[in-house]
Amino acid sequence: MTYPNWLLSVHHDGSELYVSKLRPRLGETVQLRLRVAHLAPVRRVVLRTFPDGEQALTAMRRGATQPPAQWWEADLFIGQPTNHYRFIIDAADGLWHYSAAGPSDFVPLDQTDFRILADYDGPEWPATSVFYQIFPDRFANGDPATDPRPDEYEYRGYRPVTYPWETPPPADAFFPLVFYGGDLPGIEARLDYLTDLGVNALYLNPVFHAYSNHKYDVADYDHVDPHLGGDAALVSLRRALDARGMRYLLDIVPNHCGYWHPWFQSALADPSAPEAEYFTFRRHPDEYASWLGVWTLPKLNYLSAALRRCIYEDADAVFRRWLRPPFSADGWRVDVANMLGRQGETQLGQEINRGIRRAVKETRADAYLMGEHFFDATDQLQGDQWDGVMNYGGFAQSLWYWLSGYRQGAHGFAESLTAPYWPTTAMTATWQSRLAVTPWAVALQQYNLLGSHDTERIRTRLNGDDALHRLATAVLLTFPGVPGLYYGDEIGLMDAPGLNSRGCMIWDEARWNRPLRDYHRALIQLRRHSPALQRGGFQVILTEAETVGYQRESAADRVLVFAHRAQEPRPAGAVPVAHGGIPNGARFVDLDSGAELAVADGALSLPQLERGALILQGLGDRE
Amino acid sequence: MTYPNWLLSVHHDGSELYVSKLRPRLGETVQLRLRVAHLAPVRRVVLRTFPDGEQALTAMRRGATQPPAQWWEADLFIGQPTNHYRFIIDAADGLWHYSAAGPSDFVPLDQTDFRILADYDGPEWPATSVFYQIFPDRFANGDPATDPRPDEYEYRGYRPVTYPWETPPPADAFFPLVFYGGDLPGIEARLDYLTDLGVNALYLNPVFHAYSNHKYDVADYDHVDPHLGGDAALVSLRRALDARGMRYLLDIVPNHCGYWHPWFQSALADPSAPEAEYFTFRRHPDEYASWLGVWTLPKLNYLSAALRRCIYEDADAVFRRWLRPPFSADGWRVDVANMLGRQGETQLGQEINRGIRRAVKETRADAYLMGEHFFDATDQLQGDQWDGVMNYGGFAQSLWYWLSGYRQGAHGFAESLTAPYWPTTAMTATWQSRLAVTPWAVALQQYNLLGSHDTERIRTRLNGDDALHRLATAVLLTFPGVPGLYYGDEIGLMDAPGLNSRGCMIWDEARWNRPLRDYHRALIQLRRHSPALQRGGFQVILTEAETVGYQRESAADRVLVFAHRAQEPRPAGAVPVAHGGIPNGARFVDLDSGAELAVADGALSLPQLERGALILQGLGDRE
Repeated sequence: MTYPNWLLSVHHDGSELYVSKLRPRLGETVQLRLRVAHLAPVRRVVLRTFPDGEQALTAMRRGATQPPAQWWEADLFIGQPTNHYRFIIDAADGLWHYSAAGPSDFVPLDQTDFRILADYDGPEWPATSVFYQIFPDRFANGDPATDPRPDEYEYRGYRPVTYPWETPPPADAFFPLVFYGGDLPGIEARLDYLTDLGVNALYLNPVFHAYSNHKYDVADYDHVDPHLGGDAALVSLRRALDARGMRYLLDIVPNHCGYWHPWFQSALADPSAPEAEYFTFRRHPDEYASWLGVWTLPKLNYLSAALRRCIYEDADAVFRRWLRPPFSADGWRVDVANMLGRQGETQLGQEINRGIRRAVKETRADAYLMGEHFFDATDQLQGDQWDGVMNYGGFAQSLWYWLSGYRQGAHGFAESLTAPYWPTTAMTATWQSRLAVTPWAVALQQYNLLGSHDTERIRTRLNGDDALHRLATAVLLTFPGVPGLYYGDEIGLMDAPGLNSRGCMIWDEARWNRPLRDYHRALIQLRRHSPALQRGGFQVILTEAETVGYQRESAADRVLVFAHRAQEPRPAGAVPVAHGGIPNGARFVDLDSGAELAVADGALSLPQLERGALILQGLGDRE
Repeated sequence: MTYPNWLLSVHHDGSELYVSKLRPRLGETVQLRLRVAHLAPVRRVVLRTFPDGEQALTAMRRGATQPPAQWWEADLFIGQPTNHYRFIIDAADGLWHYSAAGPSDFVPLDQTDFRILADYDGPEWPATSVFYQIFPDRFANGDPATDPRPDEYEYRGYRPVTYPWETPPPADAFFPLVFYGGDLPGIEARLDYLTDLGVNALYLNPVFHAYSNHKYDVADYDHVDPHLGGDAALVSLRRALDARGMRYLLDIVPNHCGYWHPWFQSALADPSAPEAEYFTFRRHPDEYASWLGVWTLPKLNYLSAALRRCIYEDADAVFRRWLRPPFSADGWRVDVANMLGRQGETQLGQEINRGIRRAVKETRADAYLMGEHFFDATDQLQGDQWDGVMNYGGFAQSLWYWLSGYRQGAHGFAESLTAPYWPTTAMTATWQSRLAVTPWAVALQQYNLLGSHDTERIRTRLNGDDALHRLATAVLLTFPGVPGLYYGDEIGLMDAPGLNSRGCMIWDEARWNRPLRDYHRALIQLRRHSPALQRGGFQVILTEAETVGYQRESAADRVLVFAHRAQEPRPAGAVPVAHGGIPNGARFVDLDSGAELAVADGALSLPQLERGALILQGLGDRE
């Protein structure tokens, strides 16, 4: 069955052109709009809802015709916590269903319905933010007096060593104890740099006391590590961020703690200690559950009500206290959100996630609760768990594969699964399939990224190709969700010998890739001032073997992005855009060249596309 | 992106050729097998699992090569209540994912993973049963003395009238009180007929005391209506069924009760009555929640703990007591399962469904718990709620649309949405999409049907076309799940004037469509003796504009079904079957003509297909 071409023009998403209110209250009524090509053979459109589990059909009103679009409209009563809907289009060539998964001739599953949450309590500020992730030991050393010294402690038979900034560690170094002295005062001292770059929110890798440099082996949830400056340094950083109107997230590890955390030491010493139930011993003390079998990271057992109280329920629980003054974190990045509370027979994940959400939102209504998740996180993205996740599955991986070939691996799986060429349609299908099962208000909170402390740096992945790096950056800053940069990517850092993506930030400006940094600055400014990019709808309008094009649109603003991956340029030529609802005469400016383009005969005449991204800012075809 | 042809040969489902154990216990290990064309350019296959939320990859072993198939094998540890998995195929032409949704070049969502439930407690007997649904007032009158009489009661200002069997009701009749005197003794008296037909399980429309003929307005959950013979008649029927090794389901209405149920009358009379909390009054006594606004059917409010105890929790709760001697029902058909416990802000559906399941399974471990659901029921089919549902959404509607055009309606929506021609691929996509999100053990328990008391009769829908009726019957009896016939369809009943699908059974054999009945008998025998049809895998092997073909296969047995809907015959010709793993030399017998066919050059030479179904029974290419 081949679908008629006009179905490409059917569009709806949760954005302001299509839904009158992003976050309605229970009992409110919102207006829905569907866009279809004005010449499509549509006789009528019916809204399909499912109140209390029974199908309801509502004839839509024919709204404005604004060539090349016609609009259909209906009211939707927000009567349930989650309100899902789709459309049935009665056309001369058939009866078509249109859901978030796209058009179909058969009845789609409810799980791909569009969804509107009632009384949704996610924070609004991430949508206007651009994040910058910092691995504290490697960003800037503000206070050398606190650098870890070998005489301070011993850990697994090794001692901490602080190396001179940017010096590769010796091959026999014990990597968890390789330090460079970066700390919170260092970050505070570099806020001018960040302000100049344009970012307005930080995500800090863990700062709580722990023995390793990465601090995911937390030894004390209640204090900032003294090598990072201690609690006082975080208070000071908070004040400095406030002065600039900036936000920050802390990184918490509720899935496991470090072997040397007093809880685990008590549990090891005495199986009847109160903390013993925080863990799962198959045989005390030698066999216990741990994160992927890593003995230094014993898994926390959420069957323990006492543990739940410590971590998130009590008034002074970890998840709560850091959101309050004087630390006043603006939210959390939750480590290993994908595995939390899950242990074989006991699958408490969603229950624990919901408990954490309640605690966090009670404590600070506008906190951003964002989880680490490398896989399909959509069951945790229905409004009752995370505000968003690190969007590896729905964003980063798809772009990686498209730009540098498909690679699939897993912890403990040594072989490599690769395919050099990944189709453009596979990328757009990845985007579409994930967006289809995520409420729009949640999709806008997804933390998009190109890389992190857990992956290659994007520039390394792209073999240092500057054009592809810019392309990736352009997509990051124009995609629905919250863009998150990884420190140093903007100046062209690649993975560092012996440190992978956790190398030291370079502060010698002469060694920066300044044009790349300028490109980042320009895109960050664009993003921070564009309603279309912050909250606008999303429609893929072009898929070619080497090129993808999409539209972001708000009520007053359009941005078009065309990304071309091949070395060989794409020849200049007309590209149809009428199916994006873009009228003849609509004008755009090429943000790179400053050239103006106008739509004629339903198409845009694009210039030759070199490898990279063409970003076209609308010049207002809307009132 | 066009997928290579060999991907059509990739197959896995939950059946015995592919999974070594249908119902493993937690902690067991099962063997998984994947079938691929032996000439496909496959280098290796990797099993992708997700234990405790983290991706795990396991290289599969290359198993036997049995042209045209090669097999890949791996062990799967059943470590969680739900264990989901898919495959990654590393081939010379790319890296392919294969999930229950089929092959893809991008990472599919987890929701279409294959799924194996640990410790699954669904009943095993429905898979070997063929059901027969009876609307008691219209099937057979065993005891005229209990026929409803006008002097017995008044209801909504009308009085019950019992009309002579098969007499159409007068146009001014009050339809809920139109009776024909059918009763449980009548059913018992006709068991020879049912045994001869070959069915071995009954689903009875409601028998509990109520004033209407349909009895969905239940007035007493604790007694069989005296007009149907009272409790004693049900005990007697149970005994008679036992003597024949037959089972039966009762129909329960937990979503609402009748206006005249004493609970509601108490609630109406006194807002402080204990039963008042069983209902939802917006303004007492006039405004109350009811089923789709029908005032005679007040909706039960499951926020009431006392109601939950009455309906399913207490030792003597309705859901429990009828499963015990002397009634010993073999399970329940649950009315309006789609809406149960759902009222706007309060969405208790899944919690109530789970509570009902616990109660039912505690009371009778092998009870069959089957829900009414016209829509996408897959979120209630994950092993923790219904054993199966009346499979309108995943089976009946798709076949209706394919055979008689697409029609979409809803309660209260007067307009009609229709499309005369529905593509074969839309039907197979409907099948595939529903099976993809349903664990196989649950899919085998789905109650498939062609019609019911709530729909047109299948023969009416098909305008009396005998060939299409046979086709539909053939698909019903060869599709994965439990076949359920509707009384009288087997003799060619069509909707009755004034009674729709609830007309009186015809007992004058001279007026039967005997060849149709013989066709039903033959197919019922086939189904009841074929492991392939009862538990075998399912693969669509042919989709043409007017023809669909699929394979059912068990370890020792294959059945192929080719259904052709067009009036114009499909010319004789070769059909490729190698992608179904069917070897050259495999022989089949055409169950209709007795002709033998053999596979040669990877294809079967089919005879000309008239409108109808060709069923080919394998003659053993397997040991």
